[in-house]
Amino acid sequence: MSSFKDRLRPIVTDASTPAGLAFDVMVQALIVLSIVTFSVETIPDLPANVRRWLFAVEVATVTVFTVEYLLRFWLAERKAAFVLSFYGIVDLLAILPFYVVRGLDLRAIRAFRLFRLLRLFKLARYSRAMDRFRRAFADIRTELSLFAAFCLIVVYLDSVGIYYFESRAQPDTFGSVFSSMWWAVATLTTVGYGDVYPVTVGGKVFTTMILIVGMGVIAIPAGLVASSLTEVFREEHEEEERAEAEEARGRPERST
Amino acid sequence: MSSFKDRLRPIVTDASTPAGLAFDVMVQALIVLSIVTFSVETIPDLPANVRRWLFAVEVATVTVFTVEYLLRFWLAERKAAFVLSFYGIVDLLAILPFYVVRGLDLRAIRAFRLFRLLRLFKLARYSRAMDRFRRAFADIRTELSLFAAFCLIVVYLDSVGIYYFESRAQPDTFGSVFSSMWWAVATLTTVGYGDVYPVTVGGKVFTTMILIVGMGVIAIPAGLVASSLTEVFREEHEEEERAEAEEARGRPERST
Amino acid sequence: MSSFKDRLRPIVTDASTPAGLAFDVMVQALIVLSIVTFSVETIPDLPANVRRWLFAVEVATVTVFTVEYLLRFWLAERKAAFVLSFYGIVDLLAILPFYVVRGLDLRAIRAFRLFRLLRLFKLARYSRAMDRFRRAFADIRTELSLFAAFCLIVVYLDSVGIYYFESRAQPDTFGSVFSSMWWAVATLTTVGYGDVYPVTVGGKVFTTMILIVGMGVIAIPAGLVASSLTEVFREEHEEEERAEAEEARGRPERST
Amino acid sequence: MSSFKDRLRPIVTDASTPAGLAFDVMVQALIVLSIVTFSVETIPDLPANVRRWLFAVEVATVTVFTVEYLLRFWLAERKAAFVLSFYGIVDLLAILPFYVVRGLDLRAIRAFRLFRLLRLFKLARYSRAMDRFRRAFADIRTELSLFAAFCLIVVYLDSVGIYYFESRAQPDTFGSVFSSMWWAVATLTTVGYGDVYPVTVGGKVFTTMILIVGMGVIAIPAGLVASSLTEVFREEHEEEERAEAEEARGRPERST
Repeated sequence: MSSFKDRLRPIVTDASTPAGLAFDVMVQALIVLSIVTFSVETIPDLPANVRRWLFAVEVATVTVFTVEYLLRFWLAERKAAFVLSFYGIVDLLAILPFYVVRGLDLRAIRAFRLFRLLRLFKLARYSRAMDRFRRAFADIRTELSLFAAFCLIVVYLDSVGIYYFESRAQPDTFGSVFSSMWWAVATLTTVGYGDVYPVTVGGKVFTTMILIVGMGVIAIPAGLVASSLTEVFREEHEEEERAEAEEARGRPERST
Repeated sequence: MSSFKDRLRPIVTDASTPAGLAFDVMVQALIVLSIVTFSVETIPDLPANVRRWLFAVEVATVTVFTVEYLLRFWLAERKAAFVLSFYGIVDLLAILPFYVVRGLDLRAIRAFRLFRLLRLFKLARYSRAMDRFRRAFADIRTELSLFAAFCLIVVYLDSVGIYYFESRAQPDTFGSVFSSMWWAVATLTTVGYGDVYPVTVGGKVFTTMILIVGMGVIAIPAGLVASSLTEVFREEHEEEERAEAEEARGRPERST
Repeated sequence: MSSFKDRLRPIVTDASTPAGLAFDVMVQALIVLSIVTFSVETIPDLPANVRRWLFAVEVATVTVFTVEYLLRFWLAERKAAFVLSFYGIVDLLAILPFYVVRGLDLRAIRAFRLFRLLRLFKLARYSRAMDRFRRAFADIRTELSLFAAFCLIVVYLDSVGIYYFESRAQPDTFGSVFSSMWWAVATLTTVGYGDVYPVTVGGKVFTTMILIVGMGVIAIPAGLVASSLTEVFREEHEEEERAEAEEARGRPERST
Repeated sequence: MSSFKDRLRPIVTDASTPAGLAFDVMVQALIVLSIVTFSVETIPDLPANVRRWLFAVEVATVTVFTVEYLLRFWLAERKAAFVLSFYGIVDLLAILPFYVVRGLDLRAIRAFRLFRLLRLFKLARYSRAMDRFRRAFADIRTELSLFAAFCLIVVYLDSVGIYYFESRAQPDTFGSVFSSMWWAVATLTTVGYGDVYPVTVGGKVFTTMILIVGMGVIAIPAGLVASSLTEVFREEHEEEERAEAEEARGRPERST
């Protein structure tokens, strides 16, 4: 039995073997299929026979994913680590509701696993790019959290401000600070749906001022990502130079 | 009495002691509570008993904040410096209207104090990130002021331009240069609510031209923040290298 | 015959000779003319005589472009390479539909060839700028692909999210995951037309959250381009320094 | 007479003398006044007496600006250079229409001169910031032109694309390639007024694709500005280091 487990492990967990690659490609294809059927199901007024087919595909894919999850669990050396890993949780959430809560359907979150599609190709340049992003975002994680906190406070203060200016003129859309917040979010992110906008002179002047300041605020993430990636590139460059220098130092010693 | 003052001071002003931390956490919690009740109050048609509860909370929090302000004032060594400090003004503005002008309510500006929440955690990485932002923005303060001034002039010129094109076709929305300014702000910041937009061919061609130029203008804050943060990272890097070099130079001397 | 071919080649393929420059300028002018007539033709309710003139110009330009294409093909040393080159395909697509499929008109894609207008001027600074862009984008090609893939997954997950919140309140616009995707695209790119927007409290809170995260996501391309161009500038700088250093080293040796 | 000219010159042209500063401040104040009255005049339905006052201010300011222009012309050593300089043209355009074409009013372009307000303060940090911007934009002038050209071609191709998808469904807004261009501009700059947007499935899919590509395109100006400013900072840094190194090298020699 242990030898069967040993033969199964590379297939399920190691995409670098031919059998493992085939298994991984099949699972990824099923994920795409599952996501497509899930999305199609949401279309209203589907014919009954299409619904039946979609349900059949749903049952099939959930069955396969359940088997896959159980296999991975069985093969995992540290069960707890597997269950609590990001993809462990994603996979469980994507199948559990099917058995437990009818109506709640979380198959869509399997979409996260599509990222692994890239790893599948074993392309060095993709994993290098992924690694650069990871390093760049790791460097500015704290700054981004600070930025998010700062944004929330700015959104709140702007909501209060616009509430004072617009609540009388437009009691329906700026009736409370909470309603005004929706405006603040749509405005400061420059989305500007157009469902809420100031109409009073005071509100417009206020909006002008916070938008000019907001331009500087919204520039922060781009600035952070840019400087962090520049730093990552510089580090890579230095490592290369160090490697070259070491090599250059190494050669004459050999020749001696 | 002086010894009581000495025992009180670390509690009120120094969050690094256990008692001071507890005091600070309590004040921050009350700030959040105060902000929430303030926001809830703005919801129209609240039941009378909810209103009464909210008023009770308001009285309570303002009382605590008043006591806190007076304590800080009493404990401050330089009274004037405390009153004129940023948080001194914020705190006063947040309580004074309650006693003086009924109807005007500035409790919301206490939200600024939420920033101190971060300092509370004594997390080195947060204060480092904060410090990076401070250094980055200090470096480009003059450039950002210039940019804001430039923006205002651009907005004005664009308003005049669109006024010539659209004032006849849309006298309601582009009736004067001032009305046109609202369009210019919403357009150049790319918010684009959709309440005002050009309808004439001339106005559309003009908008196209200023938007293509505007793309370059709007890129400036992001560029400034990015280059300034890159500079800050580079400086940190150099300081580290210098420290390492000094250490490396220092060691052999000791061994001699 | 071969000598005629040899005399023709520099005219058609080499814009650095006077005759070649004249030929190239003429072709570019015809491209602009062709694009303008193509665009004018789309205006509805044109008078019949204008239509006739436009058709005449169309026939003339397509004839010239056909002759040009055949000439280039005839003069090309490696026929297959020419046919499969970017401009080879563009040129063929721009003339073929005229002969084969009436109604389908791809003359507009000739607009791509306007880029060669720049090369025409033989301006070193334009080709240098072009080269910088090429190097910068070549460096981050993989990162940009990853970003596009990431965006698609984010758009999908956001569509599913908003579908849960809004599909009941607005069955017309958020009726299925596919309809919701249109909202997700318009929102995350901050275009915000205003044809679809959330109206439920849950949908608005969800939108707020994904927009704050989205600010970080949207900052990535700017950050990538910025860091990549910084790298390109740095490399140019180093090459210049190396060249200077080599020159400085070279001189004394000569003087010896 | 020549001595009078000599005494007048520093007042009119040199803001570093007390009299020159006073003259410059007065002219700048009049520019602001002129711009304000110009803007107020555009407000419809002004009372007759306000109109009369505004006209009086207009006559007064234009008179002063005319005298100032003639003075500058008289005092200029090279007349042609003065007339063709940027501010020479701006000043002439701002007064000439008053005498020549009634109805055409270009006083607004005097707003450009507000930039000189900064120079007035003789603040080293403002002129340094201005200089940084000038250097940064000078470095990327060619790249920005290329970008603008590229944008125009992209806008054109996108207009053609959307025209194919939407012209039948919405003949009013996407009736011709020219009408579609307005959509392309509003969409690619992410303004999204909401007056025109695709309604067909094909049009929405097409928009999604060009927006994902467009995110990369729109990131270019920010990237250019960021990398160029980083380069400017780096150069400044190197110059400082070189200056320090030279100083350090200089000192021991003196001590010898």
